[in-house]
Amino acid sequence: MSQENTNTNQSRVPNHELRQIRERYERELFQQIIPFWEQFSPDEEAGGYFTCLDRDGTVFDTDKFTWMQAREVWTFAELAYRYGDRFPEKKSRWIELARLGAEFLYHHARTEEGYYFSLDRWGKPLVVPYNLFSDYFVLAAFSSYYRMTGEEWAKREGIALFELIQRRKPCPKGRWTKQIPETRSLRAMSFPMMDLWMYQVLRNFLPTETLRSLAEEAKRQILNLHIDRKERVVFERVAPDGSHPDCMEGRLLNPGHALETLWFLLLYAREQGDRETMEQAAEAMLWTADRGWDPSHGGFFYYQDWKGYPPEKLESDMKLWWVHVEALCAFLLAYRYTGNQTFWEWFQRVDAYTFSHFPDPSYGEWYGYLHRDGSVASPLKGGKWKGFFHIPRALMVCIEILQAMEGKR
Amino acid sequence: MSQENTNTNQSRVPNHELRQIRERYERELFQQIIPFWEQFSPDEEAGGYFTCLDRDGTVFDTDKFTWMQAREVWTFAELAYRYGDRFPEKKSRWIELARLGAEFLYHHARTEEGYYFSLDRWGKPLVVPYNLFSDYFVLAAFSSYYRMTGEEWAKREGIALFELIQRRKPCPKGRWTKQIPETRSLRAMSFPMMDLWMYQVLRNFLPTETLRSLAEEAKRQILNLHIDRKERVVFERVAPDGSHPDCMEGRLLNPGHALETLWFLLLYAREQGDRETMEQAAEAMLWTADRGWDPSHGGFFYYQDWKGYPPEKLESDMKLWWVHVEALCAFLLAYRYTGNQTFWEWFQRVDAYTFSHFPDPSYGEWYGYLHRDGSVASPLKGGKWKGFFHIPRALMVCIEILQAMEGKR
Repeated sequence: MSQENTNTNQSRVPNHELRQIRERYERELFQQIIPFWEQFSPDEEAGGYFTCLDRDGTVFDTDKFTWMQAREVWTFAELAYRYGDRFPEKKSRWIELARLGAEFLYHHARTEEGYYFSLDRWGKPLVVPYNLFSDYFVLAAFSSYYRMTGEEWAKREGIALFELIQRRKPCPKGRWTKQIPETRSLRAMSFPMMDLWMYQVLRNFLPTETLRSLAEEAKRQILNLHIDRKERVVFERVAPDGSHPDCMEGRLLNPGHALETLWFLLLYAREQGDRETMEQAAEAMLWTADRGWDPSHGGFFYYQDWKGYPPEKLESDMKLWWVHVEALCAFLLAYRYTGNQTFWEWFQRVDAYTFSHFPDPSYGEWYGYLHRDGSVASPLKGGKWKGFFHIPRALMVCIEILQAMEGKR
Repeated sequence: MSQENTNTNQSRVPNHELRQIRERYERELFQQIIPFWEQFSPDEEAGGYFTCLDRDGTVFDTDKFTWMQAREVWTFAELAYRYGDRFPEKKSRWIELARLGAEFLYHHARTEEGYYFSLDRWGKPLVVPYNLFSDYFVLAAFSSYYRMTGEEWAKREGIALFELIQRRKPCPKGRWTKQIPETRSLRAMSFPMMDLWMYQVLRNFLPTETLRSLAEEAKRQILNLHIDRKERVVFERVAPDGSHPDCMEGRLLNPGHALETLWFLLLYAREQGDRETMEQAAEAMLWTADRGWDPSHGGFFYYQDWKGYPPEKLESDMKLWWVHVEALCAFLLAYRYTGNQTFWEWFQRVDAYTFSHFPDPSYGEWYGYLHRDGSVASPLKGGKWKGFFHIPRALMVCIEILQAMEGKR
């Protein structure tokens, strides 16, 4: 996986092909995705965003879910940062839209134990702060928002949240925990995944050494516990010794989550010059892809059981938008860094499935939830778990990688 | 809805047709359903039952979920009670099988706050007692078990559980509650539904007056809060004043739950000679059926949104076994008591859908989860939420109604 090798292999895909893809992704991002959220999502009256949006943008629920609010703040601030120079007429609007959500969260969602999981339209709390990922997303949002605005409260609150997350991580659900760890303790891959993302997004906000020590621990957990090289599987939850309890939770596979985690890991390892980890992350992507792809209808399954038993979740065989855009990032990044043609083939396969199934050219934005056979299961564009985040993040990442491959950076 | 009217209308369906249906239901119960659970479910070594059973009966998870354990105790004890005389060679086996689960629960699942939600195979606790329905099902199990065995501990513990449920009902999830009721308080139909079922199943166990006062309060809540006569809808969750907050939870419809609740209510009202409630329950069944039936593929949806917005749950358009067997009970009972031919037509429609989609003649038992188009989404016969309960209960109820209609009782 030498630099030479990388360059040699990359040259197999001609520049004009890379450019065509990049331009298609840019059109999708700037013409289909961003305008939809700019138009239908802002709640100028109460603050924050409407995120429950029907096919045509109609608001069907005004509750404010902290994950969705914070992710949207992050995305608008990130757009202003990455594309503010290219679209100077949009920059101040994007910053204002980020402010709309950031201030709503800061004024309504804070508690001493973390951020509420959800609020009503006007900011009254609906669900307690049991979910530590709310805090992770608010931290990412405030970091990005601070970079664009210099607001001191955002920095102060972000740092406090970072410390709260470290304190709460050993028992993330705190007094709302229902599992009894003495009988069975399982580690979720979500936490090392988030710590690797924090390494990406907090670097202008916190000392690199602090972030690197978290990322190293995350890398260790993913390589030693979640990636099973003998079985060639990435497990979603594992026992503290890396073993796999023979129960539904212990056998759970989540191809989208695995691919998302692996591209975070690949990116981190590349930055550290850690070739061994790069190779392991890339290889695990291929196991995940081979096992997770639906041979009958195409697309990646949402959940699988390691041994092929019936998965617990009823939606297991559905095809979800975020799984596929994370897969695009994973394969494109792996192709860029390894030059292995197999990743380019996977990228093309996922790209073809994604763009022929998820976008809704009639009303903009993408469907999120398809049946196994690819038919649309729900027309919503935004909901409790789908907001303005995975698609723009993935398109931004892919555009950046393609640009680099074209030699434009 | 006079007695005369009832009799006149019932005579429209000839006796031989009723008998054919009854005999088909009996074959299904005694040849396809019961043998599967007798063979694959008992855990003679650790006690209790395996309930996670793949298509052919293979155990794919050995955890013991209290809902499933208790429901299976109830079903075996009920079989012994109802059919012990007809199948004397099976009676003692059914009692032994009920004992296997009852003693497992009593020895391993009890806490001062209620019964654990789940245990591992050997009875070590996995999930805290946050779920009051565990206690309801254990209470029903111990009541039925006590009736067959006279075990004093079962009576003592059942009475203690009944009191615990009454104490905990105002805040059923106790310290594990995540909703903040000061902002939005919604009442779930599950509680009045369970109290009406308790009226049916605890009558040999607790004073009728105690049960009737609970059932009257349940009736009041269902008629005044959940059934909206103006909108002709049965709401799953309502504000304490019966209004419908315009959010996903407030607009949630659950046709299977509604039909199950309505047949409990119809049965109760019939016993009380309360014709007005009978009429309201029967009418609400028709609204629910008309709205809940899938016009494209047949079968009842799992969840719907009152206003037709995208439902929150990804499995909303799936077809579930329990929804359809509860619908069979509802329409058959309503036909018996009202003589209205529309109910007989609904019964026939649901019967045709159910028996052509759910049974698995190759391995016995029924599939539980179908895609919207009727194809099998999961091959499991038992899982975390599917056990030995809805099918045998519904078949027993339908057989009893059909017998009565044939004039055999």
